[in-house]
Amino acid sequence: MSRRKKSHQPHGSANRPRLWGRHAVVAALDNPERKVLRAWATREAAAFMQFPKDVAVTLAESADLGRLVPHDAPHQGVVIEVEPLAEVWIDDLVPQAPESAVLLVLDQVTDPHNVGAILRSAAAFGAIGIVTQDRHSPPESGVIAKAASGALERVPWVRVVNLARALEEIGEAGFWRIGLTGDAATDLNEALGPPRVALVLGAEGPGLRLNTREHCDALARLPISDAVESLNVSNAAAVALYAASSHG
Amino acid sequence: MSRRKKSHQPHGSANRPRLWGRHAVVAALDNPERKVLRAWATREAAAFMQFPKDVAVTLAESADLGRLVPHDAPHQGVVIEVEPLAEVWIDDLVPQAPESAVLLVLDQVTDPHNVGAILRSAAAFGAIGIVTQDRHSPPESGVIAKAASGALERVPWVRVVNLARALEEIGEAGFWRIGLTGDAATDLNEALGPPRVALVLGAEGPGLRLNTREHCDALARLPISDAVESLNVSNAAAVALYAASSHG
Repeated sequence: MSRRKKSHQPHGSANRPRLWGRHAVVAALDNPERKVLRAWATREAAAFMQFPKDVAVTLAESADLGRLVPHDAPHQGVVIEVEPLAEVWIDDLVPQAPESAVLLVLDQVTDPHNVGAILRSAAAFGAIGIVTQDRHSPPESGVIAKAASGALERVPWVRVVNLARALEEIGEAGFWRIGLTGDAATDLNEALGPPRVALVLGAEGPGLRLNTREHCDALARLPISDAVESLNVSNAAAVALYAASSHG
Repeated sequence: MSRRKKSHQPHGSANRPRLWGRHAVVAALDNPERKVLRAWATREAAAFMQFPKDVAVTLAESADLGRLVPHDAPHQGVVIEVEPLAEVWIDDLVPQAPESAVLLVLDQVTDPHNVGAILRSAAAFGAIGIVTQDRHSPPESGVIAKAASGALERVPWVRVVNLARALEEIGEAGFWRIGLTGDAATDLNEALGPPRVALVLGAEGPGLRLNTREHCDALARLPISDAVESLNVSNAAAVALYAASSHG
């Protein structure tokens, strides 16, 4: 066994994630709730970025930045180390939602590229936030932030211990909970209607867990052909968000 | 400099790509147009797969399969080496399209995960095919096939030398060419109408090239908020395909 200490984290850690890429970093710097600990940038990127005065910036070559991030990560000349955002609670988000609101609930969606793209689509279609189960969702990371293209800083992300309990609270707040599943008989458009809607998506393959389905008011499918079993989960989320936001 | 020969391709090559993952491999085995050269599988996966009799199958441990594919690739116990599919020509696809048809055109979309997810969405929403520019699109690969979840075998993929010339032919065949761009004044739904439609998407960041825009009949935007600049390109394609297939 290696005796190398696990605390050596070449690419940041869950407690101190590293974010990279211009959209992700600009959004983090713009977010008053985000504590930025330090930064590395190429001379060119540093000129472009508005680093706060209290952030130590190390100028570096692009290849050196490459060693601060996972292999092949497209850092675009800038890397920052940050503290994770403060926790958001379901009670902060759901009861005081606007009369017309869309919320996304993810059941065991773990791939950080997908979660990042879903955050980006959530911002694009004005969703009030996303809800995930803590032990089945990835921690904040550079991969998520890059895929979210700034939306990690802007879309409230609630991590709950118990997704079924969260769905109860979401229902009590007047959200119509629609579970998306390929085996449903109803098309999403027919299931939409109430102005507050929670779209519940499962991981590809296993789909929604039984206990999650049982906490939905309706099950619905996207209108796709039999040629494929399902869409990529971030694509399904984007289509569902579009359908919900253009319904009416 | 390493003197190791470049012809040593541990993960397959563009001429002999390796595909992995059960959906991708099952679809390849089901495709009469796909020449499968050899296969590796765990005992468990081999029992599940219907390998043709003329394909040599090597039984292997899961960890050994891991060395046949890129790092961390989710091979799910099965890897095959194949010949790329025969070329599809625009003349084979476009003039004889159904009266009502959706075609996707990708301008410099190079990320194989995105291209794979786009193929999957194209199959899901019944698009007749995708068109890319040869020198700006990725070759067939395991990453594309896995992300396409079988759709690489089912969705005709035309690679053209000159995208502007292809758009001319697409227009001559009666397709209404809609270029998707965030700076358009028209929403996609307003631009849809003619029963044959080509949805033209550019890479994230640069977007559609000028010469591509000039070969469109209309420019349109997806109805997204200002909170993000754009969607992930595969999410944008999924939303546009859904909008086109549910229009009218």
